[in-house]
Order: sequence, then structure tokens, then C-alpha cells
Amino acid sequence: MRIILGIQYDGKNFCGWQIQPNERTVQQTVEEAIFKLTGKDLSLTGSGRTDSGVHALCQVAHFDIEKGLPPEKYAPALNGLLPGDVQILFSMLAPEGFHARFGAKKKTYRYTFYVSDVKLPLKEAYAQRILFADVKKMQEGAKYLVGEHDFKCFLASNSSVKDTVRTIYSCKVTARGNEIYLEVCGNGFLYNMVRTIAGTLLYVGEGKFKPEYVKEIIESENRLNAGKTMPAKGLMLKTVCYKGLKLPKIY
Amino acid sequence: MRIILGIQYDGKNFCGWQIQPNERTVQQTVEEAIFKLTGKDLSLTGSGRTDSGVHALCQVAHFDIEKGLPPEKYAPALNGLLPGDVQILFSMLAPEGFHARFGAKKKTYRYTFYVSDVKLPLKEAYAQRILFADVKKMQEGAKYLVGEHDFKCFLASNSSVKDTVRTIYSCKVTARGNEIYLEVCGNGFLYNMVRTIAGTLLYVGEGKFKPEYVKEIIESENRLNAGKTMPAKGLMLKTVCYKGLKLPKIY
Repeated sequence: MRIILGIQYDGKNFCGWQIQPNERTVQQTVEEAIFKLTGKDLSLTGSGRTDSGVHALCQVAHFDIEKGLPPEKYAPALNGLLPGDVQILFSMLAPEGFHARFGAKKKTYRYTFYVSDVKLPLKEAYAQRILFADVKKMQEGAKYLVGEHDFKCFLASNSSVKDTVRTIYSCKVTARGNEIYLEVCGNGFLYNMVRTIAGTLLYVGEGKFKPEYVKEIIESENRLNAGKTMPAKGLMLKTVCYKGLKLPKIY
Repeated sequence: MRIILGIQYDGKNFCGWQIQPNERTVQQTVEEAIFKLTGKDLSLTGSGRTDSGVHALCQVAHFDIEKGLPPEKYAPALNGLLPGDVQILFSMLAPEGFHARFGAKKKTYRYTFYVSDVKLPLKEAYAQRILFADVKKMQEGAKYLVGEHDFKCFLASNSSVKDTVRTIYSCKVTARGNEIYLEVCGNGFLYNMVRTIAGTLLYVGEGKFKPEYVKEIIESENRLNAGKTMPAKGLMLKTVCYKGLKLPKIY
């Protein structure tokens, strides 16, 4: 049977999701806990990778096991074997045909900025400090990202991805106190795409780019026209959605 | 001249505010930065101590120096010499007669709980997990704390303080999402007092104590009747107020 896991992690001390030799990764940490629990070397399939330093409110993953605990018991059993910076929010039996990666229909990422002249120790771990941004301009610029576009302009130069067309369902910029949140929901994202969208909209907020220039950047299909790639620590994978499947919301 | 510093710190890796042999403390860390900057061994006076693991949104402190930089320049100069988990929010010239400790008229502390069956890696550093609490009951219980009372009931058993009368100006419990905040403003607090108030109101929220029992606890003047002392990581010194002095609000 296939077991779905909802996984929250603080990315600070992880070298991202995917297993790499000699690095501490989320995938390996959870696979090790599964091994300790079941005695079986099972591989865990995530909805996608997250980079080194990126956080996840609820990453979704699955593994297959012939027989074992009742599905919902994996979460508490694994949590006792996991370190405090990665925990299983829920475990459940996957419906027929479920696949954490290929079945993912929508993903939502959040990028958090905070506005301050001084580095704030209580914000630094999960947000990127900026000096100023006009939120209204960022909101205007964000509109141009919505829809189906070829997002080659946000493709990292070292990426070998061929199909760079993605659909962005929503791209919202909101402010609360001295924090500014960028929330992007799409059917998929290129490597570093959300961090480069964050950098591009930051330039819009700072007045370096006009809001309507975002449209030109997309049409240019040239990475050199977009803004810089923002640091990983401000980025969080928020949710992953699957067709016809309601995941528990306990975060 | 006397220089006022506004200091934010993440208490996780500090053994509290006050200098202690062989421990990393906020006071010592900032004094060392002042020494590096000025070449002078100056002592820093805080508005009060915070315990090991307690955070500060804006602790207030002062030091005296004969001549030196323009007062507002100490903040950026010291920040370059300080680690990321303690930073100076502002520096300013103290008005005549200012004293960070004896002049403090009001202090506000915040205790943060989060409600979850699972330990949440993204909340654990700054909040205490609980399974359930009735916020309305906590709000009812909180009312009995407001006013001038002898708070001997919250005095840690190892404390030698004689005068245990304090005035609490406000005590508010609010909820947002899965977080519950307790915010207490008073003219001063006994050692561990806010953490014990948090534990007492948690018992009220859990139904172990009736809201009106808080009044009886105070009147009993007996620590054994109050709730448990909650862990330090959920506690933050939020603000310190001085009569006739408006401090910058940049956090």
C-alpha cells in the first residue's frame, strides 16, 4: 500500500529535499526514520525538490510498503524518530493511482520580506530583509505573471529543462506590519523560479522596474532581464494540491 | 554622556541577559562589542534581566561614555561587531536623569502558545506547543490579574525578593490561526512571574482551573496553588516604557 506523508521542515540546517552524498537532506532524514521504524529500506517520493535552506509548511511525499502499521500511525511513530526540525504532520492511505510528484496539480509558495534598516534577530531565520518596497507597485507587477506563459526568463542559466511553459493561477503580494508576503500558486515551477519572481517584484517595489516591465521580461524570454534570485531562507513551500484529494490542514 | 540602546535578541543560544562566568549572555556580548568599538571597558545596564532562552523584541539598556561617536551612530557601528542573534535597533542620547533599570515604568511581555497535535518545526523556536485551550476562559481568568496585588503566589521558591506587590495594567489573551498570545503589561515582574501566569492561564484554558480560581490563587499567596512555570522559549520581552521618553519603534 501507498502511504502519504505531510511533512513540515525548517530548512535552515538541511541541504534541501533531495538525497545527496555527504549532505543532510530532508528526504534522507525521513527515509532513515522509516528504516528505523520498519526495518525496510524504502524510498520516499516528494512532490518536488526544495533547495538548500528552503522551508516547507507542508511538503507532500509518499512511500510504498507491503504491510505495516495502520496508515495514520506512521506520523506519530516517525515523529519520535525524527529530529525537531522535520516532523510528519499527518500520514494517510493514498487513494488508487496517487503519486506525490506526478499527481501534484497545484503548488503554493510563499516568499517573506521584512522592511527594516536593521537586521532583526527574531525575523532573520524565515524572511529576507529589505530597506523599502512599494507594495502597491509590487501588486501591479504581480498581475502580469498570472496565466499560462513561457517563463524562460526565470530559468536558472544552469538548468537543462526543455519545457518552460507553466501556469500561474495567482500571484499575490500582501503586507502586515513590517512584513511583505509574496504568495504564488501555479501548476509547477522552474528551478529558482519563485526566488527570481521575488527578486523581480522587489525591483518593481524599489522602483528599479516599472510594474508593466514584468510583461516585457516574460516576453523577452531572457533571464538577464529579470531581477536577482533572492536568498533561500525567505522561501517556503506552503501547500501542494492533488485532484479530488483533501489533505488534512493541521499546521 | 549616557547612551540608550534598543536591543533585539533571539534568546535561543543565550544564557539570558546577565553576565555569568563561562556562559554566553546578551549583556556580555554587547559589552564586548562596545569594547571593540571604543576600546573602553564600559558596563551596560539593562532594564532588567531576561532568563536563559527568553527573547527580546526591544530590551532597553544604557552605558556611559565621556566622549565618542554621535549617539545615533552607535547602533550601526555595534551591529557590525555583533553576531546575528543580537542587534541594536537604535541608539540615542539619554535625557537628563535617565536610568534603564530604575526609570522603567512599564514592561510588556508576550507569551506565545500554538495549538497542535504535532510539534511544528516552523513554530518551535518561539512558541510553546499545547494540545487545547479555551481562549475565552483564559481571557476571563486573565481579568483577575489586572490591578495592584501581592503576587507572592507567582514567586519562584528560590527567590529572596521581599516586596512582592506589583501592578498589572493589562493582561490580554488573543488568538490568531493556531497561535494564542498572552500579553502582560505591568510596572514590574517577579522572577518567572510571566511564565507562571502563562502556566496558570493555560490550566484555566484546559479546564483544570475555573477562571475565577485565579482570584483565589492570588489571595492565597501560595506558589503551590498556581500553575506550572512554562518554558522560556515562548516568552519575549516586548517593550519597556519610560516616563516622558518616546523610544523609536522600528521592529
